[in-house]
Amino acid sequence: MRYPEKLLKLVRALAGLPGVGPKSAQKLGLFLVQNPEARAALLSGLEAAQALHPCPTCGNLAEEALCPICADPERDRKVICVVETIADLMALERSGEYTGLYHVLGGALNPLEGIGPEQLFLEPLFGRLEGVEEVILATGMTVEGEATATYLAERLSAHGVRSSRLAYGLPVGGSLEYADEVTLARALENRRGY
Amino acid sequence: MRYPEKLLKLVRALAGLPGVGPKSAQKLGLFLVQNPEARAALLSGLEAAQALHPCPTCGNLAEEALCPICADPERDRKVICVVETIADLMALERSGEYTGLYHVLGGALNPLEGIGPEQLFLEPLFGRLEGVEEVILATGMTVEGEATATYLAERLSAHGVRSSRLAYGLPVGGSLEYADEVTLARALENRRGY
Ligand SMILES: [Zn+2]
Ligand SMILES: [Zn+2]
Repeated sequence: MRYPEKLLKLVRALAGLPGVGPKSAQKLGLFLVQNPEARAALLSGLEAAQALHPCPTCGNLAEEALCPICADPERDRKVICVVETIADLMALERSGEYTGLYHVLGGALNPLEGIGPEQLFLEPLFGRLEGVEEVILATGMTVEGEATATYLAERLSAHGVRSSRLAYGLPVGGSLEYADEVTLARALENRRGY
Repeated sequence: MRYPEKLLKLVRALAGLPGVGPKSAQKLGLFLVQNPEARAALLSGLEAAQALHPCPTCGNLAEEALCPICADPERDRKVICVVETIADLMALERSGEYTGLYHVLGGALNPLEGIGPEQLFLEPLFGRLEGVEEVILATGMTVEGEATATYLAERLSAHGVRSSRLAYGLPVGGSLEYADEVTLARALENRRGY
């Protein structure tokens, strides 16, 4: 006997998720088939997720027209922190150190993989610079993240806007998403001007 | 900023799955929010899974009235193999060694956790013994699996039915689900009579 086709369909969908191998996908599929409550919770979670969309200003997740950060009158509108992903934004928020706005690129420049400025949410940053005094370049400490930061620093300088880079308190080659909160807070504190 | 409530709902549902920690749940949640195709695949997989139910005869997964094994006229109806879980049944099927029927208990006896015969799909086994010449007790090689096998062997003996136990080719304390196919095939070959 093989798995029923309806289970295989679920297992294939699970195996398409990042970090879920074939064995885990089978295990999760069997669990979900046998646990109506867990299945209902996941179904309604996925349906809720359909109401989320990228914030048209910054690229963060939004439930309303703007994301909660862009909509928050308490945030400091003189600083924009540029990050690669929403997960990176969330990591910085957890550090509790930052009170400005964000700009989520959706990745880093990577010419070898065909990712140029047009493939990212990059140009809209230059339409948001009015009244901005500093742009913090918080792309990853990787080759691509550094290249992206350098590229943005040059273009921001041409716009007359000061930029800074996160301090190398972060492990080199590491992703912001997995940095602990203290390290992130320290890296923000020690950011250096370009 | 905190995660949007709609994302948190999805992350909580994911964190309720076995083997998914809080970090993975966040990562998977963000991925699903940002990937409509993966989300649609998982949604339709979950909806398909709702059509599966336990086979009333053996407890295996069924799409039709009976599961594919109970409905298959080629399977040997003189042997029933008793397993703890559907995952264990699937593992034995993958070994390709077994051509009889199954009975899925849904767990093992565990008095400390309040799991007695009534909490399992156990009594229905005794309503299926007509024409059965052997019951293979393929519960896990754990304390609970051994206790369950011993309990069933005694009761089957009272019904005049011969039972056998999987050979200790399986790692002691191990779950069938994670055994490789050769080990499972060998364990079936070398099963011993009670
Ligand atoms: Zn926004
Ligand atoms: Zn069946």
